[in-house]
Amino acid sequence: MIYLDNNATTPLAPEVVASMTPYLTNEYFNPSSAYEASRGPAHAIRAAREQVARFLGGVRPDEIIFTGCATESNNASIFGVLRANAERRHIITTAVEHPSVLEVCKEAQREGCEVSFIGVNHKGELDMDAFVKALRPDTLLVSIMHANNETGVIFPIADIARVVKETNPDIIFHTDATQSAGKLPLDLTGALSDIDLLSFSGHKLHGPKGVGALFVRRGTRIRPFMCGGHQEGGRRAGTENVGHIVALAEACVLAEASMAGETSVAAMRDRLETVLCEKIPWLEVNGAGVERLPNTLNLACHCIEGESILYQLDAAGICASSGSACTSGSLEPSHVLKAMQIPFTAMHGSIRFSLSRYTTTEEVDAVISVFPDIVDRLRRISPYWDHDRSAPRGT
Amino acid sequence: MIYLDNNATTPLAPEVVASMTPYLTNEYFNPSSAYEASRGPAHAIRAAREQVARFLGGVRPDEIIFTGCATESNNASIFGVLRANAERRHIITTAVEHPSVLEVCKEAQREGCEVSFIGVNHKGELDMDAFVKALRPDTLLVSIMHANNETGVIFPIADIARVVKETNPDIIFHTDATQSAGKLPLDLTGALSDIDLLSFSGHKLHGPKGVGALFVRRGTRIRPFMCGGHQEGGRRAGTENVGHIVALAEACVLAEASMAGETSVAAMRDRLETVLCEKIPWLEVNGAGVERLPNTLNLACHCIEGESILYQLDAAGICASSGSACTSGSLEPSHVLKAMQIPFTAMHGSIRFSLSRYTTTEEVDAVISVFPDIVDRLRRISPYWDHDRSAPRGT
Repeated sequence: MIYLDNNATTPLAPEVVASMTPYLTNEYFNPSSAYEASRGPAHAIRAAREQVARFLGGVRPDEIIFTGCATESNNASIFGVLRANAERRHIITTAVEHPSVLEVCKEAQREGCEVSFIGVNHKGELDMDAFVKALRPDTLLVSIMHANNETGVIFPIADIARVVKETNPDIIFHTDATQSAGKLPLDLTGALSDIDLLSFSGHKLHGPKGVGALFVRRGTRIRPFMCGGHQEGGRRAGTENVGHIVALAEACVLAEASMAGETSVAAMRDRLETVLCEKIPWLEVNGAGVERLPNTLNLACHCIEGESILYQLDAAGICASSGSACTSGSLEPSHVLKAMQIPFTAMHGSIRFSLSRYTTTEEVDAVISVFPDIVDRLRRISPYWDHDRSAPRGT
Repeated sequence: MIYLDNNATTPLAPEVVASMTPYLTNEYFNPSSAYEASRGPAHAIRAAREQVARFLGGVRPDEIIFTGCATESNNASIFGVLRANAERRHIITTAVEHPSVLEVCKEAQREGCEVSFIGVNHKGELDMDAFVKALRPDTLLVSIMHANNETGVIFPIADIARVVKETNPDIIFHTDATQSAGKLPLDLTGALSDIDLLSFSGHKLHGPKGVGALFVRRGTRIRPFMCGGHQEGGRRAGTENVGHIVALAEACVLAEASMAGETSVAAMRDRLETVLCEKIPWLEVNGAGVERLPNTLNLACHCIEGESILYQLDAAGICASSGSACTSGSLEPSHVLKAMQIPFTAMHGSIRFSLSRYTTTEEVDAVISVFPDIVDRLRRISPYWDHDRSAPRGT
């Protein structure tokens, strides 16, 4: 089986599994307990917090909060800021965020907030003019993702955050870095020092599902999202999932080392992109020409259905996706591609390949050898395809 | 080491660990994905949901939502009901709830809700007169725990819920069953059929930390707490922690079998209670004379400090606690014992032993053999103890 859906979830690194297993067996104690035996788990959380703080550019360990997932980190950021700052009720976000930001913003609208959803152009780039115009005296929060989960398009969040802070330093800047964490450097004491809140999860960087982190810069006005016990410095209640916290930190350490050591993921993705575009007519790269995550390739195959392509790929033992897993199950085309105003015949035939450091050249070769035939076969039965001209009908 | 702090957290059952490990290795796929490989994880969640539904008396599987912990289930219940029902703003709860209910209620107060905190008598029994008087036309939600985590005192929630529904069937009834799940039957289609929302977690019944469940009776007006993707029928966003969900279900199945098969936990607890009370003067059982969890023994040792007792027990290899782990680290006496108006000299010397199905008679014997000496030694150096009369000074 060839797994090229790493933006949906990733296989756990063996080192990660090894790091967490003691906490599923002997080291089960509640880290908040008073006896000697609980010191191991308590110390493990402290060490994990320091590792994640280093991973984010050497921030203060007390600026890291462990959560249950990136969705929770996003909910905690937006709802937490709203709860702490009742005097301002305007939020700016983008039309291409993950549902865990979009839906929270829509919930905030229902509760009386105003939300500006900034659009993108056909390459997926943010409409900076519209963004700057949207900033208002009552803007409380800007939430803009670092890299898009579907196209891999990277937003220039360092620049965007600088514009925000120059306009009004009281505006809080949040970024969902779920897809960039482990793929791009996240230097919150350097290039990204205007960012107040940053979310990511374990399972997108070869850690387990069910754990996330939230960076909260010291001084940020935010209230807890999950209320209750004193855990996480009173900022996130609930008995700590010790093993998963240790695993997340281990995943960060491994990702850091892997980012520094190699560029082979980008090289494999580039080769996949180049060869497929050479072999297949009317194939377009969604997000072409802009900076993208090194592992992500989103292809628009004119005139065929993404679901049919996936089915054929699956039969050939290749796992890919046609949108985000979080919005799958619906036949609606992706809100991201809609916002990019991709032509209708291309939007429905979009396929995402997302690689990882475990992807091999042989796996990429296998995709190159089967994908063109799959597209060709499906176009032959497509009513939108002009078989005489080998082009979409009507073009 | 003798672990008698099972109300804080429990060792994982070996069967539970075995049930979850495939999802940390080969079965890592996102259950929302479209390809064949993701069907295993998707099916595992479906099966787990059916098992938990059976554990709760045969409710409908779609009435079960998997969460990250009981704290999240409690937050989701209270905030979710508040968001869905803006027209009523009165909540009733008790003074002895877990912080994950109390603090959420206090946050609701800050947001403009009125909250009635019903007290208890010196045995820990709910003040039913005050409760009935607190019910108002604008009461939206009643949140009352099933069994107290510190004393083990069981509230008659079936009766309380019936009173609520007879007064006004539109009032939503929530119970935090974190301590009772796996220790008492939870028959939500029988005795507990007036309950709309019920929370519990994995790690209190030999499952892992980082997973919880929330029962939501069909028809209950509630909005999602964690907003985002379509997971859990659109009621709890975030990629499912498949392994932990499977583990929670396995823990429920094992707990069910263990409840049916034996009463040895209650017998061991009773013996511990009886023998210690015989051997030690001025020792009282907090919650004596009322129905309590079979595994919990909360002892008030007059004139000595709980922290000192814990330290001595720890030195003897025995893990116990002086309050809930979720409120530890503070020197404030427990809010539960304060609400019970336990005398000052007893409140500070309260110790909780909580047993499990893995507790052995030998372990109980070991506590019986060392605990009286510990109490005696500490009283000898206590300024509150009258050494001539072997009683608290001033009595």
